[in-house]
Amino acid sequence: MPAVAEFLHSHGGDILHADQHQDVSQGVCLMRVEWTLEGFDLTPDLFPAKFSTLAETLRMNWRVEYSEVPARVALFVSREDHCLLDLLHRWRSGELRCEIMLIISNHEDARSLAAFYGVPFHHIPVNSADRIQGERQQLQLLEENHIDLLVLARYMQILSSDFVARYPGRIINVHHSFLPAFIGARPYQAAYERGVKLIGATSHYVTAELDKGPIIEQDVTRISHQYELDDLKEKGRDVERMVLSRAVRWHLEHRVVVYGNKTIVFG
Amino acid sequence: MPAVAEFLHSHGGDILHADQHQDVSQGVCLMRVEWTLEGFDLTPDLFPAKFSTLAETLRMNWRVEYSEVPARVALFVSREDHCLLDLLHRWRSGELRCEIMLIISNHEDARSLAAFYGVPFHHIPVNSADRIQGERQQLQLLEENHIDLLVLARYMQILSSDFVARYPGRIINVHHSFLPAFIGARPYQAAYERGVKLIGATSHYVTAELDKGPIIEQDVTRISHQYELDDLKEKGRDVERMVLSRAVRWHLEHRVVVYGNKTIVFG
Amino acid sequence: MPAVAEFLHSHGGDILHADQHQDVSQGVCLMRVEWTLEGFDLTPDLFPAKFSTLAETLRMNWRVEYSEVPARVALFVSREDHCLLDLLHRWRSGELRCEIMLIISNHEDARSLAAFYGVPFHHIPVNSADRIQGERQQLQLLEENHIDLLVLARYMQILSSDFVARYPGRIINVHHSFLPAFIGARPYQAAYERGVKLIGATSHYVTAELDKGPIIEQDVTRISHQYELDDLKEKGRDVERMVLSRAVRWHLEHRVVVYGNKTIVFG
Amino acid sequence: MPAVAEFLHSHGGDILHADQHQDVSQGVCLMRVEWTLEGFDLTPDLFPAKFSTLAETLRMNWRVEYSEVPARVALFVSREDHCLLDLLHRWRSGELRCEIMLIISNHEDARSLAAFYGVPFHHIPVNSADRIQGERQQLQLLEENHIDLLVLARYMQILSSDFVARYPGRIINVHHSFLPAFIGARPYQAAYERGVKLIGATSHYVTAELDKGPIIEQDVTRISHQYELDDLKEKGRDVERMVLSRAVRWHLEHRVVVYGNKTIVFG
Repeated sequence: MPAVAEFLHSHGGDILHADQHQDVSQGVCLMRVEWTLEGFDLTPDLFPAKFSTLAETLRMNWRVEYSEVPARVALFVSREDHCLLDLLHRWRSGELRCEIMLIISNHEDARSLAAFYGVPFHHIPVNSADRIQGERQQLQLLEENHIDLLVLARYMQILSSDFVARYPGRIINVHHSFLPAFIGARPYQAAYERGVKLIGATSHYVTAELDKGPIIEQDVTRISHQYELDDLKEKGRDVERMVLSRAVRWHLEHRVVVYGNKTIVFG
Repeated sequence: MPAVAEFLHSHGGDILHADQHQDVSQGVCLMRVEWTLEGFDLTPDLFPAKFSTLAETLRMNWRVEYSEVPARVALFVSREDHCLLDLLHRWRSGELRCEIMLIISNHEDARSLAAFYGVPFHHIPVNSADRIQGERQQLQLLEENHIDLLVLARYMQILSSDFVARYPGRIINVHHSFLPAFIGARPYQAAYERGVKLIGATSHYVTAELDKGPIIEQDVTRISHQYELDDLKEKGRDVERMVLSRAVRWHLEHRVVVYGNKTIVFG
Repeated sequence: MPAVAEFLHSHGGDILHADQHQDVSQGVCLMRVEWTLEGFDLTPDLFPAKFSTLAETLRMNWRVEYSEVPARVALFVSREDHCLLDLLHRWRSGELRCEIMLIISNHEDARSLAAFYGVPFHHIPVNSADRIQGERQQLQLLEENHIDLLVLARYMQILSSDFVARYPGRIINVHHSFLPAFIGARPYQAAYERGVKLIGATSHYVTAELDKGPIIEQDVTRISHQYELDDLKEKGRDVERMVLSRAVRWHLEHRVVVYGNKTIVFG
Repeated sequence: MPAVAEFLHSHGGDILHADQHQDVSQGVCLMRVEWTLEGFDLTPDLFPAKFSTLAETLRMNWRVEYSEVPARVALFVSREDHCLLDLLHRWRSGELRCEIMLIISNHEDARSLAAFYGVPFHHIPVNSADRIQGERQQLQLLEENHIDLLVLARYMQILSSDFVARYPGRIINVHHSFLPAFIGARPYQAAYERGVKLIGATSHYVTAELDKGPIIEQDVTRISHQYELDDLKEKGRDVERMVLSRAVRWHLEHRVVVYGNKTIVFG
């Protein structure tokens, strides 16, 4: 870390915020440094070559992100639009620094909402028969639009492992339970039957294994015996949109580091 | 319910608080009524016969509890004493209306704490070989002391199903995870490995099936990547003692109704 | 209470949920009863006369609300539209059972959002000079539309006491602090300067005295030293919309009873 | 920061955790660095001179703390012992790395608890007449015991400004409200009367102005209309002990930096 700070300093970088975490048990050190480019003498094309030398000496994995280059995002949604609306509104309000390039859905429901926010909407029906065909269409759109991040905003289809492999660490999903409780389908039903006193939601990176990817954020809310199943679902929506929007935001701010099957979210 | 209220009223009972819940899907109605005995003309020996007639007409399951008759409680503990201390302190402060008759432990550690609070302490070593013998000793103590409620305040032994069957709905345990996540041994280890962002604890009635009994209370607390396993355990203790003490309190105030494999906690 | 339950029962009313609270210190008893109209033999035109007799005997203040008659709601907003959007979306999703009749704003910003949700939008500029004129226009709209409830969804103008007096207990505001901390203008600024560790929001009925009306709901969220003033405002928005939407919902479900300068929210 | 990291590195220091925060508006940079002493070639007697040179160059205020040197702590308490017990138990459990040297109280109530934990107990009655005499006795004890930190664990006396001036940034108090709401006496009473929906507690450094010192930690808990004043107090205790013990812990871990009238708590 001193070496990194010294490197940035020597090139005129003024560190705004730095965070470092050492995992003693695994002998790994993780750090995140934010610095201003004003006065920094390494342009984006020069930086990699210069920094690589240092990084190799320190046997460091690294990446640099420029906050002036917004990520290009695709939103996937099925019928329930509360997460979609939440992301669109935060984006419009300036909370999410990114470009939302397109919305893909296996239903028509969100078309008018997409239009209201001026985002191109693509209806791609998906079912077991045409899943491969559907994913092919989706991938083409993602590639044409140079998408950096996919957000599954209550997209109720399972992506194939081939698809997932194309965007490692770049697909964020929200699962409507406090994982690892209630993996899979119908988590509210399962929560209702088990009689839990809190319901939760989890945002995570999608991996080949369903609901097993690195968790980015989780939260819960209290319920009571007066909540019927539909009340659970309704109350759960508020948690879903909170944990999804936080995860997306942190990802866009390059605060999330995947580490084994875990994430570190730098504050 | 009108009939019950009318019955109490006609005998001079002044209703302090009444709560009723109808589970439409199951066609069941649950209610809890608190009334003052001042001016109530049915003494405890007369009440059951009188009320039974009404209850039969309404095909009602019922029980009556007198808040002036404190439950007789036994606390079970192993080595970690944070839940034990918490319960003893709340009891001493008047938060828990009960008589704590005895403390049973498979270790000697809590002896001095028990002495400080003036509660008889019994060290009953338990291991796989002498489990049956140990439970026999425990049961004898429980019977001699006319124990109404057993609280497993971080008691790290599994009770036999025979033992559990003796105290149905009268053994409260605290499990150090947000059930049904991380059932069984080493939940903090499992939570650490899965990379969850919140850790929790659950208090529940003990049934024959491990960690599957009706949940009384749950809560969670936020952790960060800076928490090593020991920090999780430490932070978790605060949640454990909160959810256990709430469950014990609600049970002692007769607010908890078991209902299928769930509970209703009347406010 | 037995008398009320008995009354409903005798007319074929099936009680779904009943809650009663006795304030011993003030000698007041409050209750809320929900019952089904299926089989109930008192129509809305007959109920008041019949019930009044009983109510007089019991010296009871009472009101009856029919859930099939949705309240007619007016939303007031200034520039920030997060609360407005939240209410509109919940309304559209069926979470809020009401009719949103119109949106009134002292700015043009929300016009397109209003159009998207199909709600008439009225731009009524208000400033110190034309306040009375503005309120006159507002009142005319409210009367023409037979408005039952006014929701100030981040409406940054102070209503005159005359205006407020027209809608007692029927104007809900959200204040962006945990009242009574940071009453008045610029609460986030004040919170930032005081160095609090949590920021909050409060929904309350509007009375003549600024930010002093009966509180319906409050919540808070944790902040850190990394939050600049703008981050506080941003994070605060999520709390604002939660506490406002809960208050509106509870009001619409007739769960809120004003009681002195407090509210009781029946669960 | 690079310079500091470089300095530590050049002396064989291995940085475990580093955190830096730049307050752009005030042009101030704050940092906290934890490093191991294994292999570090500057002993505590050498460090200040060496580091001062660098610090002067950078116009830096600094202090170094050695985690192997536990702070010497005095606990002050009046009658309610829940915070005292909580601190003693966490200390005994190893959560609080410090030496609790003595307990001072204006009542006798806590004597046996002090004895149980083996901490010297001093009863110093304080009232308006003998306040100065009482503080003189207290100060003598604090000096004799080389006390570093005073914790007011529900000590219901106001310290004179002379007394406070002796221990700047070294007296931690818990106030039983969410400051700045309900400053001064009887905060629960005031909260009850205002009808707030959450009650809170605040731990802060004591300054000459009552309840106005830099806030270290705050938390809240939800209450309902069923809570009478005594229930508020009871529920509040759990929040009080949480916010006080967190503050004490963070202070002892040297995570708290006072900054204007605010604190930064490094994670």
